[in-house]
Amino acid sequence: MKARITVMLKNGVLDPQGKAIQGALSSLGFSGVEDVRQGKVIEIELATADADAARRDLDAMCQKLIANTVIETYRIELA
Amino acid sequence: MKARITVMLKNGVLDPQGKAIQGALSSLGFSGVEDVRQGKVIEIELATADADAARRDLDAMCQKLIANTVIETYRIELA
Repeated sequence: MKARITVMLKNGVLDPQGKAIQGALSSLGFSGVEDVRQGKVIEIELATADADAARRDLDAMCQKLIANTVIETYRIELA
Repeated sequence: MKARITVMLKNGVLDPQGKAIQGALSSLGFSGVEDVRQGKVIEIELATADADAARRDLDAMCQKLIANTVIETYRIELA
């Protein structure tokens, strides 16, 4: 089973990478870019076919390793 | 208009970050993790409301800055 975890900074948390991209885009001549936020996406191939077990494991993975839940939010999608 | 760009390494390109996450997950006791790939997701708020113009701009942004098209693929989603 394939899962996709998307981790983004919480709203209100400064995103220096996003700001850097926004600055670079405007210096490349792209106008109309109002805001840029960067996060990470992690695709995980799991051996299990049990969606509930997978979701429980993935949530624990996020809590323990993949996301810093103080400043980040995460979203789990099962394919 | 909000857009989301997902950038992943092409298949076959070694993903050291993915391997590191996979190793850390197994040392944390998570079994059944067959593969892990990490990429980046960029959310961009655009002033335009014209979807076609937005898609053209976003594609040019990917080609020029956001993605290294030699080793990465990118996907554009408009919200």
